[in-house]
Amino acid sequence: MTVPAKERTASSHRPKILITNDDSIDAKGLHALVTYVSAFGEIRVVAPDRARSGQSGAITTKTPLSVQEVRRSDEARFYTCNGTPVDCVKLALHIFRDFRPDLILSGINHGSNAGISILYSGTMGAVLEGCVVGIPSIGFSLLSYEPDADFLPCRPYIEALVAKVLAEGLPQGVCLNVNFPLSPQGMRVCRQAPGYWTDEYEGCPTAEGKTKYFLTGRFVNVEPEAVDTDEYFLAQGFASVVPCTCDQTAYKEMSRISALVEAIRLK
Amino acid sequence: MTVPAKERTASSHRPKILITNDDSIDAKGLHALVTYVSAFGEIRVVAPDRARSGQSGAITTKTPLSVQEVRRSDEARFYTCNGTPVDCVKLALHIFRDFRPDLILSGINHGSNAGISILYSGTMGAVLEGCVVGIPSIGFSLLSYEPDADFLPCRPYIEALVAKVLAEGLPQGVCLNVNFPLSPQGMRVCRQAPGYWTDEYEGCPTAEGKTKYFLTGRFVNVEPEAVDTDEYFLAQGFASVVPCTCDQTAYKEMSRISALVEAIRLK
Repeated sequence: MTVPAKERTASSHRPKILITNDDSIDAKGLHALVTYVSAFGEIRVVAPDRARSGQSGAITTKTPLSVQEVRRSDEARFYTCNGTPVDCVKLALHIFRDFRPDLILSGINHGSNAGISILYSGTMGAVLEGCVVGIPSIGFSLLSYEPDADFLPCRPYIEALVAKVLAEGLPQGVCLNVNFPLSPQGMRVCRQAPGYWTDEYEGCPTAEGKTKYFLTGRFVNVEPEAVDTDEYFLAQGFASVVPCTCDQTAYKEMSRISALVEAIRLK
Repeated sequence: MTVPAKERTASSHRPKILITNDDSIDAKGLHALVTYVSAFGEIRVVAPDRARSGQSGAITTKTPLSVQEVRRSDEARFYTCNGTPVDCVKLALHIFRDFRPDLILSGINHGSNAGISILYSGTMGAVLEGCVVGIPSIGFSLLSYEPDADFLPCRPYIEALVAKVLAEGLPQGVCLNVNFPLSPQGMRVCRQAPGYWTDEYEGCPTAEGKTKYFLTGRFVNVEPEAVDTDEYFLAQGFASVVPCTCDQTAYKEMSRISALVEAIRLK
């Protein structure tokens, strides 16, 4: 389904790049990304009008959505949307009939999307949506939640990766989850670290004698000894590149599950 | 990480089953599921206080959450939560220290979660969350969006599958996405059908001369000839069982992506 970008980019064709994020149109990381890749092609940004972190692959089904152009610069045209990151991608593809992207980028996220964070990440939700419709897509995240984080050390890696993917595309059904430590000293391809979040809520009593819960917690890496995961390479100071799929089938366990289901004899 | 349910269920132990959904605490499919499995153990329901379809793996990060017991019956204790399906699972595990589930069930969803719908599904978001924390988890969906749909034909399959998984557990890192046609005539293990949604929005002009977009569209199966996908078996009248993983690494393409990244020479 994924057509390598180069096949679609005839010599006279300037690549079209769609950029979104989940930290909102105002996030520093988004504008850094626009600046870093603007020389590669024609850029349109469709980003949430407010922070939509933790939105995963959520779509808006009950309320109407709108898209509004808010600014044009030499680098890009900027639009906001009142939906989720996935809504931003879906609407951009629906509305801009003259702008079929050669590449979809999401980020640069303020904060890690390594390990199982991909399950909750709005940044990666948008990337997986690009993957579903067969467009090469990459998510970028920096391991800092600071609104004023310094994204500049990521720049050479982003430029190199974007140039490469524009030239060669990505395999069918595969997108990339790229995470950066504060000062990357190289880039490594690796798998998603298995793990989970623990101690996840802080409870606060309310005046009515009830409890309100606020999300908190920390990531537990269940394979801390593994030397081939994104968490490992990030801890070693490398940028991590995890090839991701939107096919969630657990192929390795198909035969065990088949045996389990076949053993069921219904009356 | 997943401990087979039987190892945790000593002879005197009555299995604990946590049930959630994304159609809300009031949905018929949820109450059908409670009824069908109540004989298997102690049931607690923590479900969204309103419809949260399309919420995927979304988590609530900015607003406080609360959980409220709304009813007790002979079958179950019912709680509502103002969060997403994933929030419901996370909060249940956090709050109920005396109720570590042996099994997490989600549904029965009103509508299909076959094919790539798993990416957007709140029903399956909750199931994947159970998988992340190592608890055997199953999502059930019926191919009808009717609020008053007839779930009874699913009952024998649900009972048989729940009994089997309670007895044997599931492989580590694997959960199940089960979809039912209206009158299932058997159950088949299969892979997630690849595809995407098209013609996704209806645009309506507003009084201010702008456009509001409403989500709509239809699923396009990009491998309609395949005879091993959930979409295929559902069309043939079978219930589909897709083993799913929360590891989104595209292992099959690791070497191609490694070659792509290794070819990048940074100055």
